[in-house]
Amino acid sequence: MPFSVKILGSNASVPAHNRNQTSQLLTMMQVPFLIDCGEGTQLQLKKNKIKAQKIDHIFISHLHGDHYYGLIGLISSLHLYGRQKDLNIYGPPGLKDIIAINLKYSQTNLNYKINLTEWEYGDKQLLFENQNIQIYSFPLNHRIPCSGFLFEEKPKKRRINRKLLPIDLPPSRIIQLKNGEDILDEEGKVKYANKEYTLPPAPSRTYAFCSDTKYDEAIIPYIQGVDMLYHEATFMEDMKERAAQTHHTTTTEAALIAQKANVGRLLIGHFSTRYKDLQPMLDEAKSVFEKTELALEGHEFSED
Amino acid sequence: MPFSVKILGSNASVPAHNRNQTSQLLTMMQVPFLIDCGEGTQLQLKKNKIKAQKIDHIFISHLHGDHYYGLIGLISSLHLYGRQKDLNIYGPPGLKDIIAINLKYSQTNLNYKINLTEWEYGDKQLLFENQNIQIYSFPLNHRIPCSGFLFEEKPKKRRINRKLLPIDLPPSRIIQLKNGEDILDEEGKVKYANKEYTLPPAPSRTYAFCSDTKYDEAIIPYIQGVDMLYHEATFMEDMKERAAQTHHTTTTEAALIAQKANVGRLLIGHFSTRYKDLQPMLDEAKSVFEKTELALEGHEFSED
Repeated sequence: MPFSVKILGSNASVPAHNRNQTSQLLTMMQVPFLIDCGEGTQLQLKKNKIKAQKIDHIFISHLHGDHYYGLIGLISSLHLYGRQKDLNIYGPPGLKDIIAINLKYSQTNLNYKINLTEWEYGDKQLLFENQNIQIYSFPLNHRIPCSGFLFEEKPKKRRINRKLLPIDLPPSRIIQLKNGEDILDEEGKVKYANKEYTLPPAPSRTYAFCSDTKYDEAIIPYIQGVDMLYHEATFMEDMKERAAQTHHTTTTEAALIAQKANVGRLLIGHFSTRYKDLQPMLDEAKSVFEKTELALEGHEFSED
Repeated sequence: MPFSVKILGSNASVPAHNRNQTSQLLTMMQVPFLIDCGEGTQLQLKKNKIKAQKIDHIFISHLHGDHYYGLIGLISSLHLYGRQKDLNIYGPPGLKDIIAINLKYSQTNLNYKINLTEWEYGDKQLLFENQNIQIYSFPLNHRIPCSGFLFEEKPKKRRINRKLLPIDLPPSRIIQLKNGEDILDEEGKVKYANKEYTLPPAPSRTYAFCSDTKYDEAIIPYIQGVDMLYHEATFMEDMKERAAQTHHTTTTEAALIAQKANVGRLLIGHFSTRYKDLQPMLDEAKSVFEKTELALEGHEFSED
């Protein structure tokens, strides 16, 4: 089962150069997760032909406007479109107050329920779990409480080797094989050895989202070895001091984090408006960590 | 001095059919006034090459999201662009709380001052006055407190008839003529009669903005005889009951208001998403009030 990340926006602070503010849609084990929601995200969803009503889970990293000003508009539109199923939101302390005050003054009683989990800043925290996936928050190092998110596929079952499988095997036996068991005959002897009729499980994929943060090696344990890492890279290396002052990261620093955490691929984003042409940012990051790509709006990055 | 209205959005409730939510820029006596600020208004300003920093006055009609969800993003971007001059906002009770809570959680100390006037619902109220213009709020009839806005140019000075004016007349004398005075000679006799050397003042223009409201003739006294009226027309006449239930207006009703108030021109907007093609709305309104136009995004309507 592949996962994919569709970039809906990746500009820092303000929309500029036809680049919107942070938002992306991760689809893992067929479940869509919206991560951050800058102003205009509902328009970006439309533009990318993503049905907003399919989204049941929204993650907000922190309460700087470029990461959440589109949330209340999306909540409101889902209501106006007639949504009835619950919407699950995972965000920083304070988000509940912000949503509540907007709904209060518009005198809106939503026709669906919001389940809002406000993560606590400071620890790795399990936010979501189903039979296939676990999602955690973990602390980043920014000016205000800010969390990264780690999306992990759980270990998968063994795959049936259909070429060798006896045609008449009933479904209950196939499940046994997928669960790693041998199939025994009536005398309790191994009839079909698991190893012979199955292949190893597909790999369990992992994705980590880190925005916004200053360069901080303390985040490495949380993202160690992920298949794909999104890490902010607001500035180029010559703006290193400015990056540190504003609690942001440079391209080189993001690449260093990727290298030290031994991740599979790196996506960089949250580009400062000062950079219209992003190629130099990519080149600089690649000089440290070759498997770097720009998190460009509309682009999709997937893993098998 | 002409005034002009640039439409930045005019769809109701949600963005659809490439139509954004309500916002428009009125420029009167060379001062730009932003009226309502749906999500993405800052992007619409960019698209229409309007410099956001030039805007010193923003009017918000009510606290339904499609009329103000873009305000906090605009406030935030003005800060990030380095604004230092005051921003004056005129809006409904509650707007101060909403802005404050967003700034609180983002730990933002704006580097400029917001002067926020919360109008009281119910009476005509003077919100703004300078030497050339007066702006009033007046009550509309909607589900939550909602104000219309009346923009009035003050009576203008007489215009010098330059064809007849003696070339050697000093500036102080010209001001006297503009003020409607005769110029006397040393003996106190009329040397230059005002009537001979001046033309009547240019007309003082008026613009009224009415969104959202149900059909209500009680608003007519506030907008009587304005040169241009923007009035919402969410539905067509066959949806009259739905319009009444939701405290909105039909095309025919908007045109009736325009007719009864004897306005110069009518702009209709706040189109329901159910109408992709707006021509039938225009036709229906024109059948009652010929001088009707669609408040289409990107269009500009001006008066000399």
